[in-house]
Amino acid sequence: MKVLTVTLNAALDVTYRVDALEPGATHRVSDVAVRAGGKGVNVARVLCGLGVSVVASGFCGGAAGESLRADLARSGVPQAMFPISGETRRTVAVVGSAGEATLFAEPGPMVTAAEWDGFLGWFGEVEADVVVLSGSLPLGVPGDAYATLVRASRVPVVLDADGPALAAGAAAGPAVITPNRRELTAAIKSDCHEPAAASAPTLDNPLILGAEAALVSDGPLGMTLHTLDGVWTAAPPEVLAGNPTGAGDAAVAALVAAWHLPWPQRLAEAVALSAAAVRAPLAGDFDRSFYDQHRAAIVPTRL
Amino acid sequence: MKVLTVTLNAALDVTYRVDALEPGATHRVSDVAVRAGGKGVNVARVLCGLGVSVVASGFCGGAAGESLRADLARSGVPQAMFPISGETRRTVAVVGSAGEATLFAEPGPMVTAAEWDGFLGWFGEVEADVVVLSGSLPLGVPGDAYATLVRASRVPVVLDADGPALAAGAAAGPAVITPNRRELTAAIKSDCHEPAAASAPTLDNPLILGAEAALVSDGPLGMTLHTLDGVWTAAPPEVLAGNPTGAGDAAVAALVAAWHLPWPQRLAEAVALSAAAVRAPLAGDFDRSFYDQHRAAIVPTRL
Repeated sequence: MKVLTVTLNAALDVTYRVDALEPGATHRVSDVAVRAGGKGVNVARVLCGLGVSVVASGFCGGAAGESLRADLARSGVPQAMFPISGETRRTVAVVGSAGEATLFAEPGPMVTAAEWDGFLGWFGEVEADVVVLSGSLPLGVPGDAYATLVRASRVPVVLDADGPALAAGAAAGPAVITPNRRELTAAIKSDCHEPAAASAPTLDNPLILGAEAALVSDGPLGMTLHTLDGVWTAAPPEVLAGNPTGAGDAAVAALVAAWHLPWPQRLAEAVALSAAAVRAPLAGDFDRSFYDQHRAAIVPTRL
Repeated sequence: MKVLTVTLNAALDVTYRVDALEPGATHRVSDVAVRAGGKGVNVARVLCGLGVSVVASGFCGGAAGESLRADLARSGVPQAMFPISGETRRTVAVVGSAGEATLFAEPGPMVTAAEWDGFLGWFGEVEADVVVLSGSLPLGVPGDAYATLVRASRVPVVLDADGPALAAGAAAGPAVITPNRRELTAAIKSDCHEPAAASAPTLDNPLILGAEAALVSDGPLGMTLHTLDGVWTAAPPEVLAGNPTGAGDAAVAALVAAWHLPWPQRLAEAVALSAAAVRAPLAGDFDRSFYDQHRAAIVPTRL
């Protein structure tokens, strides 16, 4: 199986270590770590770690884009990033010695219409068995970009987006959407033009958004998988402390890596790998021994 | 006249605009500004603004180095940056809507012995009438780097450094050193091996460090110029509120631009341009109308 991940708003994730963040002061940064980021890049990294054939695509430009490409190469993640004239956004996480993080997210580049058209042309030709679309849309890309990509794809699409991009993309009928509970509720409310439709039973059925299946995360409590064949829920083996950033990306990767397994097993894999990602310090990584140890113990319940 | 500025630890200065800095929170950066920085780069920028022929040199590498070169080109500052394998440091200033700034300074690259030797070889051949050495030393460069450059130069050298780099460089006999009062006191104390020598009269004579002249800044109170021909002091036309970053670099630029004028006039120019720099929001810029209006009114006093 070959997977294509699409990260239209990829980022260069920079981490600054300081003693303690003090507003107004000058801080000597003791360590600088730089890593290719963005949700689809994290998914690609996890798939690589699982031994699944994957290519990371998306937009990439400027000096930050060069650093992003260099990190993907260093990490052994195959890439087909589409060059743009704008500069890839950076995120800067300032982490104090006690571990507390303060994040600064750049607005990101403006993608031109010609660049978007160029990417669409490439996307229409690329060979893959599953496509994963992840994260926010950069400036300049149409609001229905994910719907366009879902329609243009000749293979199943997993869509991990938020807000209007999720609602618009889901309406085009992807194979799976993967919102968390908050994102799902917001998308259903925004999608229901008649107030009466926003009743509790409707909010319980994410498939009304248009996707064939939906993996809905309730964070540390677990996940629920809604399909045309039934609904299953599963919880992680224990309540975990750690780094929730990237846990959703790991769940998407697990769902894709287990593509040909029955739904309950795919859900169990997603819950297990998501928990293993919480136990790893960086998004895109996972605690392999935790994953190997606990994946068999997770038994989904049919609702 | 042609000036060469040397910025061994040049930087890419990045400014992030946010609503307000809140430790632990995620901040959406509304605006990102990127600018070539480092003290010698600021001096070169001011000299360009004064119409003086200048070349900015120093070390430059990686993605941040590329952005630095690009900004110098955009700004019309001629450059001869020496390429290194390491990545040029960034400084990130997070500025809130009330104008308060919080600074994060990366440690900067490690310069290899071969890179330092390569720079020295180039420096020994370059044509200039005055050389300006500014700022801190990057990792890997010897602590007496400024002394080596002063000795290797066939033309007068202005040294604007701090700490051990200042003390070591001044001992090699540059034409002018340009410390502020705190830097000067620290350098003299560290230079006097006999405690008895650290008396008040000695602290009053910066020339014991080895330079032929010293321009000493007392911040908003003005500057004192110590030379073999006498000592002069001058104050700015008014106490100024504004951005003191880069004011010292503007004073160095003025001193160099007025190289062939008598000492008191050079001092007056330094005080006037330094004050005009305080009134400009970015280091390397100055308020030209303020400068033109006030430079004639500054009359140095002989001490």
